[in-house]
Parts: sequence; structure tokens; C-alpha cells
Amino acid sequence: MARLQFWYEFASPYSYLAAMRIEEEALEAGVEADWRPFLLGPIFAKRGWKTSPFNLFPERGRYMRRDLERWAERLSIPFTMPDPFPQYAVRAARIALIAGDEGWNARFSKAVFLAEFSEGLDISRIDVLRGIVEDLGQDADAVMERIKDIAVKERLRAETAEAEDLGIFGAPTFVSPDGELFWGNDRLGEALRWTAGHN
Amino acid sequence: MARLQFWYEFASPYSYLAAMRIEEEALEAGVEADWRPFLLGPIFAKRGWKTSPFNLFPERGRYMRRDLERWAERLSIPFTMPDPFPQYAVRAARIALIAGDEGWNARFSKAVFLAEFSEGLDISRIDVLRGIVEDLGQDADAVMERIKDIAVKERLRAETAEAEDLGIFGAPTFVSPDGELFWGNDRLGEALRWTAGHN
Repeated sequence: MARLQFWYEFASPYSYLAAMRIEEEALEAGVEADWRPFLLGPIFAKRGWKTSPFNLFPERGRYMRRDLERWAERLSIPFTMPDPFPQYAVRAARIALIAGDEGWNARFSKAVFLAEFSEGLDISRIDVLRGIVEDLGQDADAVMERIKDIAVKERLRAETAEAEDLGIFGAPTFVSPDGELFWGNDRLGEALRWTAGHN
Repeated sequence: MARLQFWYEFASPYSYLAAMRIEEEALEAGVEADWRPFLLGPIFAKRGWKTSPFNLFPERGRYMRRDLERWAERLSIPFTMPDPFPQYAVRAARIALIAGDEGWNARFSKAVFLAEFSEGLDISRIDVLRGIVEDLGQDADAVMERIKDIAVKERLRAETAEAEDLGIFGAPTFVSPDGELFWGNDRLGEALRWTAGHN
């Protein structure tokens, strides 16, 4: 089955929208999604941006909030802006890499996104993340210990470097097997059609 | 008939894509498009940007070029990046306002976009603009004289200020009768459905 890379950032609300619908839409398109968590912060920092463009450019931030509300309504999923925004998502991303190796990352990532953008929980908090890992029936003590490993930290840096090498500058970004980039939740359908070969 | 405001900037390649398809898609949706030329430069300048974000952020610029190629192929329209990019579009925008008063702006604007993004012509040039006006059967001498009028210059400034007041920060942007903003060529369908009342 053709595979579409789904590069996402836990602090990104448009990544949330994509995460909540990619499995169903990929299935319909006959495509498999590879969940690839990464960090946008280091990429934005190279532009001199210390926070999200939605904070840097207020009129764009206002537009985004309204646009997200409309999308959430259309998809019938809850949406709330987390406070603070953007959330510190490094720990969640490290857990997602571990979960990916063990086959429970899609469930973990969706649970993190829902905690953040539906329940308004602070996903920088160890207890929130631990609760999510426990709810998935995983060994939370072991996982929360492993995110302190140098190897896991390095791995996340390498994933982020790979995203940058691919030319990724925002999230979500979908990457087809032939290296085409599709930036934005609203390009998921186009990315799936491209990957399935129905252009 | 419900009316959708189509705010566009002649230097913007995504405005070109929208301009080439909005009439047909609006007709299908039972919506009328109001063509509203404006200038992005003064809005970008308030962010401290002296050129297009596609020049400021090279990886985004690369993505955009590829994305535009894909869109043009899908829509079966030609596409070439003008040199220099972005083009100086102030004169074309002034003519578009005059043309709007006289009922020939959609034809004029499409002709400008095609000259720029299909033929690669420099739309800052008086002779290029004059040729387009002549080809449309208009009095080119009179029109080219009028774009020097203070009143026309003021009018374009006022239009750009109105865009900014609406919260517009990029082009194209579609604005529904109830004040909803939809940013980007890829949101045209959504804007038309919203305006037609089929959300």
C-alpha cells in the first residue's frame, strides 16, 4: 500500500485537525499514513521567530481561530485554544517516537491532541502525559523514564532535521512517496489523491 | 444573488489561479463575485516585510513554486514565475479600479494575470498595460492618463485600508456577505459554499 508521511507538531492546531481525520480518509484512499512527529520551534527559530506566527501576526492569529472553529464544526470535533499557546510539546513528541517504535503512536498522538485542543489540558505537564500513556495500557513508569534518555532526545532532533531537509516549514505537512510536499490540513485530500495515483 | 468579495493582488500568483476560475465556479454555486483589487505591500510593510514572504522564506518559496505548478497543471492553465518577483502592480491595480466602475474589470484583471503569469510580461510597464487596455477595446489614452489622478491613487489607498480593516493579510482572500474570511486560492470552494448557504 502506498504510504504518505504525515509530519505533525503537537503544538499545531491544524495538525490536530489532520490527526483526527487522516486514518479514515487514508483508508478510503487506499493509502497508509506514517505518523512523523517533529518540532517546528527549531525551524521557526532560524527565521528569527521565537513563537508561533499566529502570535507574531495578530490578524493572522484571529483568522486562524475563526478558521479552526469552522473546521471543527464541519468535522464535528471539539475545539478550544490551549492556554498558553503554543504549548511546550517536546516531551509529547519524544513519547510519540517511543510509541511509534512500539506500534501505539497513532492512538497516543490523537489522545494528546484531544487533551490539548478539546479538553484544554496543558500537554507540557508530566502528569497529563503519564495519564495518557496509562490510559493506553502502556508502562507509564518506563516510558516517562525513557524520555530522559539522550538517545530519545537525539532521535527527535534527527527527525526535526529530516523534516527541515525535506523542505518542511510548517505543520502539518504531508510527503508523498515521490517526495511531493503538501502543506496544511486543507491539503490532506490532495496529498492522498496524489499518493494513490489519482491526480 | 449572494455576492462574494474576491480581494486580490496582481503580484500574487495564487490570486492568478483564483482569478482564472472564480467566474465559472461562482456561476455553478449561484454566487456573484465582486472583484476587489488591493495592494499587499503596505500590509506586509507593517510586519516589517519589504518583499513577498516567498522571497523572505526560501523554503516556503520553493514549496510555492512547486505547488503552483501542480495547481496550474490541474486547472490546465499555463504558469510561469515572473521576473522580477513580485511585480510592481500599483498601476495595474489603479486601472482595475477604473475598469471596475466601467464594467470591464474582470476581463482586464484576467488579461493582466495572463500577461504576467502565462506570458511572463512585466506588468509594471506602461506599454504592456496600455496594450491590454487597447485589446479590450477601451480608450487607452484616457485610461493611462487617469491613473495619474490623485483621486484614483487615493481610491486605491482606501481600498487597501478597507482590506486591512476587514482583517485581510494575504491574497487572495474571499469575504462572504456575513463577514467570514477565507484566505487562499484553495479556499475558494469553501467560500462559495459558505456564501451560497450550503455549509
